[in-house]
Amino acid sequence: MTVTVATIGVHVLDTHVLGIQSIPEGSEGQLVESIRISPAGTAGGTAVVLSRLGVTVRSQGAVGTDPLGDALLGALSREGVDVSGIVRTDAAQTSSSVLPVRPNGDRPAWHCIGANGVFTLDHVDRAALEGAAHLHLGGPEFLGGDAAGELLAHARGLGLSTSIDLLAPGDPGMLEWIAAALPHTDYFLPNDEQVLGFTGADDLVAGSRALLGAGAGCVATTRGKQGALVVTPDEVIEVPAFRIDVVDTTGCGDAFSAGFVLGRAQGRSLADAARLGCAAAAQVAQGVGTDAGSYDLASVEAFAASTPTW
Amino acid sequence: MTVTVATIGVHVLDTHVLGIQSIPEGSEGQLVESIRISPAGTAGGTAVVLSRLGVTVRSQGAVGTDPLGDALLGALSREGVDVSGIVRTDAAQTSSSVLPVRPNGDRPAWHCIGANGVFTLDHVDRAALEGAAHLHLGGPEFLGGDAAGELLAHARGLGLSTSIDLLAPGDPGMLEWIAAALPHTDYFLPNDEQVLGFTGADDLVAGSRALLGAGAGCVATTRGKQGALVVTPDEVIEVPAFRIDVVDTTGCGDAFSAGFVLGRAQGRSLADAARLGCAAAAQVAQGVGTDAGSYDLASVEAFAASTPTW
Repeated sequence: MTVTVATIGVHVLDTHVLGIQSIPEGSEGQLVESIRISPAGTAGGTAVVLSRLGVTVRSQGAVGTDPLGDALLGALSREGVDVSGIVRTDAAQTSSSVLPVRPNGDRPAWHCIGANGVFTLDHVDRAALEGAAHLHLGGPEFLGGDAAGELLAHARGLGLSTSIDLLAPGDPGMLEWIAAALPHTDYFLPNDEQVLGFTGADDLVAGSRALLGAGAGCVATTRGKQGALVVTPDEVIEVPAFRIDVVDTTGCGDAFSAGFVLGRAQGRSLADAARLGCAAAAQVAQGVGTDAGSYDLASVEAFAASTPTW
Repeated sequence: MTVTVATIGVHVLDTHVLGIQSIPEGSEGQLVESIRISPAGTAGGTAVVLSRLGVTVRSQGAVGTDPLGDALLGALSREGVDVSGIVRTDAAQTSSSVLPVRPNGDRPAWHCIGANGVFTLDHVDRAALEGAAHLHLGGPEFLGGDAAGELLAHARGLGLSTSIDLLAPGDPGMLEWIAAALPHTDYFLPNDEQVLGFTGADDLVAGSRALLGAGAGCVATTRGKQGALVVTPDEVIEVPAFRIDVVDTTGCGDAFSAGFVLGRAQGRSLADAARLGCAAAAQVAQGVGTDAGSYDLASVEAFAASTPTW
């Protein structure tokens, strides 16, 4: 049976420029290996990977009326994501990042917040949540905790499970800002830096427990090569990452979210859902951009069954 | 009566990142003022401005099958350019430039040649030239002189006038490479650095005459704030640039080509056509990207009539 997931929130168009070390002098030109664009963001990137995994995805957010917005909607549509709920706004440009990737793999980013900063509850089509199994809210910090909480509670009232992931770096003030959303969140899906930064805890288990204390039902944290750590009031589950050659980690957190959310929607255990998340992240990590590679749920499961972990 | 122009050759998607001085350390992020994409290239950029000026434009070239190609075709279509003659190729990525614009206005560029490098005469739909008044070939260096000459001669045989503009920097070897195209070129539309570089001449008039000697019917050279210099076997015409605040010169040469080509297609004198070219370039120079601003032929003519020159 097809799973339907609603993704709401941050949508970004990423542009990766490969093989550069510095900016040319003056107005000089320099030939580079490759330039590519890909849809990204804690909602948009997760939507792409969910769609690849066979999920019916309706995404909601805001993009500008500019050519960047056309490009972002086009890139999401090409991936099979239903973008009819993404509104166009004249109030800001489309959110975009440009990432000049260094030969050593470092990927510094220039980012323009744009339309993600003007997205509000008024833009949300609540009817589009009906019939979905799950709501993934990417970047609740842009809505604020009260509005995010209201949306998540509404989704739960319709029978959906809920998850959130933040774009903002770990900062205790940010946690306070979104605190009202946590009691309506089944799965909080941050990365390790965010957990430690948000809570000031010395270790991830303590940090995760602090987030559970703030109301989240479960905290599943990505931690790069160390895989994922899932913490509930009753359990602490470590799931290792797969042993691969990492090309680019852009979008790996979003891919983890996609695999984890799908796994839970299919009724898998927390450990198995996190394993599917790590396997999805491994697909994205082996190429450049969130839309890297070519895979479906069957190939990701075959990968997970045959690939050693760290 | 509507003028129809065929543009063939180089199509690029430009991404401008505004307000940056350096690349962040490691994988750090940095917020920037603005990021925008625009269609560009010696064929694509000229096509955009021609369309703005009311010309029916059929553009031909090659883009990849990647999301960048979707974005470039979408951006051209949004501008009213007929892109049905642009082929999609798996042989290379879509040609793209990323320009990190410094606060002082410098605009260094990272460029990936991509599909423009695999475009050949086999990709050209010659039937699409029929009924057009003019062929503008942008970047004949990618075809080579013999192939470019064959295409230009074919267009002339159908009654079209012809023009070329090169992407390559001035280099005597490049002139040699495209020499066979010049006898079939009514208007050669280079910039000042190209003329001096191609010919090794000490001044633009001498350089232009050398290009006439190589077969071009007329050389109309852009030279930034100094406007344009038009040289034929009989005339040397200086046309001043308009007095504006320059924001970004990306695409100004292409805009000049568009205004000049339209002017000639409408039967204007060389001087008046060059003036229209300078006026079109001034629209593009006042914003970021080749698609900067909002104008049509009437507003450009009103601008030219009311704006002082340097």
